[in-house]
Amino acid sequence: MTTRKEVADLAGVSEATVSRVLNGVGPMKESTRARVLEAAERLGYHLNAVASSFARGRSGNLGVILPHVPKVHLFSTYYFSEILSGIGEAVHRRGYGLLLLFRNPEEVYDYVSLYRTLRIDAGIILGASSLPAEVEGIRRLAGEKLPCFVMDQHFADIRIGTVATDHVEGAYLAVRHLLGLGYRRIGFLNGSPQYSNSSDRTAGYRKALEEAGIPLDDGILYEGNYSRKSGYSAAERIYADLGKLDALFVANDRMAIGLMQGLREKGCSLPGDLPIVGYDDSDAARFTEPPLTTVQVPFYEMGRLAADKVLDRLSAEPGQGGTYLEILKPKLIIRKSCGGGSR
Amino acid sequence: MTTRKEVADLAGVSEATVSRVLNGVGPMKESTRARVLEAAERLGYHLNAVASSFARGRSGNLGVILPHVPKVHLFSTYYFSEILSGIGEAVHRRGYGLLLLFRNPEEVYDYVSLYRTLRIDAGIILGASSLPAEVEGIRRLAGEKLPCFVMDQHFADIRIGTVATDHVEGAYLAVRHLLGLGYRRIGFLNGSPQYSNSSDRTAGYRKALEEAGIPLDDGILYEGNYSRKSGYSAAERIYADLGKLDALFVANDRMAIGLMQGLREKGCSLPGDLPIVGYDDSDAARFTEPPLTTVQVPFYEMGRLAADKVLDRLSAEPGQGGTYLEILKPKLIIRKSCGGGSR
Repeated sequence: MTTRKEVADLAGVSEATVSRVLNGVGPMKESTRARVLEAAERLGYHLNAVASSFARGRSGNLGVILPHVPKVHLFSTYYFSEILSGIGEAVHRRGYGLLLLFRNPEEVYDYVSLYRTLRIDAGIILGASSLPAEVEGIRRLAGEKLPCFVMDQHFADIRIGTVATDHVEGAYLAVRHLLGLGYRRIGFLNGSPQYSNSSDRTAGYRKALEEAGIPLDDGILYEGNYSRKSGYSAAERIYADLGKLDALFVANDRMAIGLMQGLREKGCSLPGDLPIVGYDDSDAARFTEPPLTTVQVPFYEMGRLAADKVLDRLSAEPGQGGTYLEILKPKLIIRKSCGGGSR
Repeated sequence: MTTRKEVADLAGVSEATVSRVLNGVGPMKESTRARVLEAAERLGYHLNAVASSFARGRSGNLGVILPHVPKVHLFSTYYFSEILSGIGEAVHRRGYGLLLLFRNPEEVYDYVSLYRTLRIDAGIILGASSLPAEVEGIRRLAGEKLPCFVMDQHFADIRIGTVATDHVEGAYLAVRHLLGLGYRRIGFLNGSPQYSNSSDRTAGYRKALEEAGIPLDDGILYEGNYSRKSGYSAAERIYADLGKLDALFVANDRMAIGLMQGLREKGCSLPGDLPIVGYDDSDAARFTEPPLTTVQVPFYEMGRLAADKVLDRLSAEPGQGGTYLEILKPKLIIRKSCGGGSR
């Protein structure tokens, strides 16, 4: 491989000058610059990007830090795949690399060292939860004012850039639709409680019931973990409760699909025996039988927006702009599973 | 931030010694090593990973180079999401980062510079095709004997590590199953011809027909581009041809799903009017009505295997081992869309 010295010799300049020219650092006479570039070109000298990023203090990578969940094909969940597609669009357009790093949710992840060691220039944290170790990792990061956004999760006392969807509103839309169809005893199958978007859904569910003057009935609240399997398992209890349920709101489509499968295996007819509204408007929602009424979340847009905004920070003045917060709006998609209207 | 000089001063050694200790390079007296580590610890000195990887010649990243396809949510396709999940499992287990980089399939991509500039230590090329620019990029890479595998695509005259599935066999299984159900006029809706796995499917389709003594009928060969939309569009022609079709083999589930939707909108009853076999065994295959008979491809396993094997290369002796080639086996999954057996 050609060395910097050979380029310097051919151009008749010092090695330091070669570095300064190739890194675009400092003032430089145009004729010297041209001579160095020509010599580098002739000798096929490739600037070492790591050495170069070291000099510039940039890696060219946007980091995305994801939870490692054993046995879950993370990229195959609609949630992660759509957010990543949106992030991917932005990094491609801006010429960045997308560095995926996995964290163990039970350990305090050292986000800060990713920046100190120049592995990433900016970061997005996906799938964060309120588990103590996760919160502690994000708290340490937030203190450093580095360019990093958290996706779709909020914390009571940590100020950090955030892009999210309004899940209070999403759940409210779903439950209000069921109320509008005349159902009153509306159950709720929620996902894992460590995500703020789960408690936000609860808040929206309660808000809709309260507005309709319907008291909350703890006996028709169910919990899964957002997996299809957990929806399938919940079918047992929900089937036993059919006598006290007019309809059910389910916190994501995957659980709704598992639940529908479980109920069908028990001989239920859907939506007749139990009108259901899901959440996410995943690809699969339109292929279920009956097709799922659900709440559309702009995951792709969330990913694209977070990537663009966090990369914008790199060219902003340090300390400028305050804490970024953008909350997007969900949308109700009416199909047939709710027993109501059109497809 | 603490500098290397401060660590050197506190430990009473030179800056070069600090670097050698922290990078683990060269022989070193144990007492000196301990003094440097203690000084670094006390001052909170973080080794700069870029400088450090420069010294070691390693980035700690496995690169995955993907085609950029405008408007396609790449991570939301079953093919890419499952392969990436498998790759993700391996890089997490081995402590690597997964650097995703997008290429424009119409330009000759400079893979080699990713290695020269130490952005990646090893690479996997996804979604490669036989477009001339793509082939040229891979040809240049193959000449360098760098640790890089191509996924699920083969080239007549380029020797490069490859992990693939036997799609001749997959198509053969699908068509033989339809023949076994008594169908003889079996059409084929294939995907884009620039992928070797498309021509492999054609080979398997022909093989099964030949074995059964059925002449190939060009009039019942159709072409889409693996998208749902292209399947939906193909419904027009296929509907017009129903009189000369006993059954249809479709080269992936997405097209099959689009086609089924299109045919149903024209008033077809499925599988009665047209028995169909898909390909991939994607998540959606079991939720269609009727559920899809399809060919299961071990995408996750392909990703995991390619990542493990290409990272193994990093610890192998240079030039050792020859060109890696692993071809996994597909499996027929029988559901109801073929009009035959069980679900």
